Amino acid sequence: MLRLYDYSESGNCYKVRLLLSLLGVPFERVPVDILKGETRTPDFLARNPNHRVPLLEWPDGRCLAESNAILWHLAEGTPYLPVDSWDRAQALQWMFFEQYSHEPYIAVVRFWHFAGLVDENRAALPDKMARGYDALGVMESHLGARAWFAGERYSIADIALYAYTHVAGEGGFDLSGYPSIGAWLARVRSEPRHVAIQ
Amino acid sequence: MLRLYDYSESGNCYKVRLLLSLLGVPFERVPVDILKGETRTPDFLARNPNHRVPLLEWPDGRCLAESNAILWHLAEGTPYLPVDSWDRAQALQWMFFEQYSHEPYIAVVRFWHFAGLVDENRAALPDKMARGYDALGVMESHLGARAWFAGERYSIADIALYAYTHVAGEGGFDLSGYPSIGAWLARVRSEPRHVAIQ
Repeated sequence: MLRLYDYSESGNCYKVRLLLSLLGVPFERVPVDILKGETRTPDFLARNPNHRVPLLEWPDGRCLAESNAILWHLAEGTPYLPVDSWDRAQALQWMFFEQYSHEPYIAVVRFWHFAGLVDENRAALPDKMARGYDALGVMESHLGARAWFAGERYSIADIALYAYTHVAGEGGFDLSGYPSIGAWLARVRSEPRHVAIQ
Repeated sequence: MLRLYDYSESGNCYKVRLLLSLLGVPFERVPVDILKGETRTPDFLARNPNHRVPLLEWPDGRCLAESNAILWHLAEGTPYLPVDSWDRAQALQWMFFEQYSHEPYIAVVRFWHFAGLVDENRAALPDKMARGYDALGVMESHLGARAWFAGERYSIADIALYAYTHVAGEGGFDLSGYPSIGAWLARVRSEPRHVAIQ
């Protein structure tokens, strides 16, 4: 059985749990507490030298890191990865957008809130929030004309962006001015076999 | 002909120029000065709402953003994208590593140096440097046992990581303690049709 090294609060880990649920693939969760340094143990570093979750381990011991690389690999040959070459390029474009222009702002600010780190990061907060809203603006603009991020149906690009967007409010982001994002979040939630982050 | 919206100092833009050279694909460079706000004009935003280069435009007007998504799309069906499913997953893992754990430190510190922004970012510099060295350590560890990042030959994963690693010294990173990275940089440079960043 697949083993997911997993931190329950992490949107990056949630992406993998959500896709595995959609695919109906059974897996074992191995809790890893990032706040207690459990990704820095020799045992974990042997599996992922870059000390991050999620990490997916196959029964033969092979390990894959990076949430969006895991999504891509699991989705190959399923309806969640577009077949068309241009649609696949769009999916990757949005997944790199998510990791570079979205997660470092929206996910990091949320993390500061639940880990009690807002005060010590007070000076950096306005810039982080502005860049997070910038990413939300790019998404809103795209979704004004399209139902999904890549191709004509729900794909791993949507899963990647849903993970931290749907909990952006936990970091103080107000989504009320983003109606197309709101409608898209509802579409994602209404998919069969959808599961919540926790 | 393909048009590359391009900033010559950018390693992300260089990735695309390097792969197009390796593939022997002709393209037109459209210089975009990010320091003068040229990615924020209405004309540019119509092509990429996320206001970043590189941006690759096809003759029919289609545009693709995100350097590593562009690499993937151009490399499909060529020797620079592995065929094996696991090797492809490894390539993507390293490309997401590059954008999340490498570029925000090694490329950003280099940018501060050449844009004259080191003084105003003095407080953030030690953490940025430490995380950059952390990424170099992960690469060194991998390259101690392997010649390339994904599969058994030069691929887009190497191109993605070469772009900012080979100019890390311009940001003050000392690569002398990373002999496996040094040997890998030399292997990349010795590939036929290699081109320099400028």
